[in-house]
Amino acid sequence: MNLRIPGPTPLPAEVLEAEARPMVNHRGAEFARILERVTARLKESFRTKGDVLLLTASGSGGLESAIVNTLSPGDPVLAVTVGAFGDRFAAIAEAYGTRLTRLEVPWGEAADPEAVRAALKKHPETVAVLVTHNETSTGVTNPLKEIAAAVKGAGKLLLVDGVSSLGSLPCPVDEWGLDVAVTASQKGWMAPPGLAMVSVSPEAWKAHEKAKMPRVYFDYKEARSYAERGQTPWTPAVSVFYALDAALEMMVRQGLDNFHARHAWAGDRVRQRVKEMGLQLFPAQERYASNTVTAIRVPASVDDKRLRRIMLERYGVEIASGQERLNGQIIRIGHMGFFTDADIEATLDALASALNEIGFRPVGASRA
Amino acid sequence: MNLRIPGPTPLPAEVLEAEARPMVNHRGAEFARILERVTARLKESFRTKGDVLLLTASGSGGLESAIVNTLSPGDPVLAVTVGAFGDRFAAIAEAYGTRLTRLEVPWGEAADPEAVRAALKKHPETVAVLVTHNETSTGVTNPLKEIAAAVKGAGKLLLVDGVSSLGSLPCPVDEWGLDVAVTASQKGWMAPPGLAMVSVSPEAWKAHEKAKMPRVYFDYKEARSYAERGQTPWTPAVSVFYALDAALEMMVRQGLDNFHARHAWAGDRVRQRVKEMGLQLFPAQERYASNTVTAIRVPASVDDKRLRRIMLERYGVEIASGQERLNGQIIRIGHMGFFTDADIEATLDALASALNEIGFRPVGASRA
Repeated sequence: MNLRIPGPTPLPAEVLEAEARPMVNHRGAEFARILERVTARLKESFRTKGDVLLLTASGSGGLESAIVNTLSPGDPVLAVTVGAFGDRFAAIAEAYGTRLTRLEVPWGEAADPEAVRAALKKHPETVAVLVTHNETSTGVTNPLKEIAAAVKGAGKLLLVDGVSSLGSLPCPVDEWGLDVAVTASQKGWMAPPGLAMVSVSPEAWKAHEKAKMPRVYFDYKEARSYAERGQTPWTPAVSVFYALDAALEMMVRQGLDNFHARHAWAGDRVRQRVKEMGLQLFPAQERYASNTVTAIRVPASVDDKRLRRIMLERYGVEIASGQERLNGQIIRIGHMGFFTDADIEATLDALASALNEIGFRPVGASRA
Repeated sequence: MNLRIPGPTPLPAEVLEAEARPMVNHRGAEFARILERVTARLKESFRTKGDVLLLTASGSGGLESAIVNTLSPGDPVLAVTVGAFGDRFAAIAEAYGTRLTRLEVPWGEAADPEAVRAALKKHPETVAVLVTHNETSTGVTNPLKEIAAAVKGAGKLLLVDGVSSLGSLPCPVDEWGLDVAVTASQKGWMAPPGLAMVSVSPEAWKAHEKAKMPRVYFDYKEARSYAERGQTPWTPAVSVFYALDAALEMMVRQGLDNFHARHAWAGDRVRQRVKEMGLQLFPAQERYASNTVTAIRVPASVDDKRLRRIMLERYGVEIASGQERLNGQIIRIGHMGFFTDADIEATLDALASALNEIGFRPVGASRA
């Protein structure tokens, strides 16, 4: 099976083997060594000297943790949203009683740093800005460096959904000034789902001191205090830690820059072949197209369910549908974390064959 | 390694193998079948016709979910606490702004159903009662059936920490009237940590409708709504699901009653041999001593750290220390989930040998 959805991703054999190791005491010396090693490598990968904390939860749990650890009910918050996950981040902030302003752009487009700057000028009371780095639902990577400059230039707290970017796309947390950056084990990390990983800047810790939202399970101070003793406050997903530890070992061996380059190659290659097939990318501007997930418009003549079923049943390739309002409108190919060149080519071959079987002909194309 | 702490527990080979299966789409047909099968078996094991929901979190996350899904800030709540985990449940309720009354008994004792009845008479405004079924920190099993009768007789909502009881100790959720019962995959379920499992009664759903505490990640309604489509709202810990699925298959094959009987045997056997060694059980009354974890007083002449170190290094048996105020005062032997008779005997042999090496002689005992 060639699982080409935008997470969970296939796992390398080393990672699967690591998962199946016998259980250890989560308050013992061996787990402490794993937690320490994983944390150090994540800090390197996030390019941060700040804290990186691990929570037994999904990426969405990680997003919730960012909100409840840094904000208070009634806080004015600006949510920059370019798709379903931006909306989710905003919805969490709203559920916890922030006063939310939304800066929305049409799905398929990236957020404009100038628009963020203008929104902050219009809403100077804003205390924090929520931004998605890589919007998994639309296959768009926001220009986070420039957006961060606008947010930090205005002196605001910056909470980043980096769930499907960190690890696979360049995202130097300290250099760009991200106060909380959230990712999850099953995205660009070659590990199974179960762990959210969050970086916390000194400024985020300052916000934490004043933050009045209720929290226990997701509390960063508890997590940091236990991490200093090589533990987590609550029983962690030990086997997912084993897996992440093995995956990070592979990433370090491969080199983080090489890992980013692999994703850049995959993004380029998928876009190139998809266009050659006569399909249209969903992102409005190709320079914002994601290197971890490619979103493709479903041609009017094609039934996306049938297309995906043929790819799955005939070629063993599983790709993703569109979410929410994009259901039926787009298909998405994941190329994050663990993949070989052959996995990518096989996916594209399957797509081409399935389109052919359905009888799709791009406008203006003639059969060779 | 003979891991004899009160969770995580060792895992059967079948479960370790299941964990290492390749990843699947968490929104696909295969995961839906696993979720459906796991849920059905959990309902059977909980003996409930109500809902059982699975959350990617530890047991403590499950406890938090019980609070935030059924209560509102300012709600008067009675917390029955007999140890560290009872205190934790109470602390979570307090962090979320309930008006908390504590019914505390000295650590080592069980809660008295009559005292619960009296407390509810004294505090008729109470809307919910928090109770720990099996207190892992003291090795005490509360008489939950009788406590539940007192709580439900007074018409209150009953939220139960069954983290280290459900699965291994009889705990018929519907028959006893538990509104929310929480457990976790790494306790009596022979699975790795990462999943909290909670049952939700019709009365708890009614409370949910009025409950105003903020929540997103732990929201029961989202979990139920997605479960109806064979999904979870957020990406689940898929490999822990694989493991739990395999473990439940084994439990069903063994028979749930047989599984309970195994734990009753283990509890009896450990207590018998511990007493033969001249050691004292920590629970004040043996009839409330837990069948999943045995807490033993550390004799005044024994350094518990040295004792545990000898057991670990010489015999490969890892037992647990006391928590918080019981640190240094007690040791704890876990016998929940997966164990063979030989594991139990080896643990007790190691304890006896280590005591002998330290030079411990029970008062009045002479060397054979």
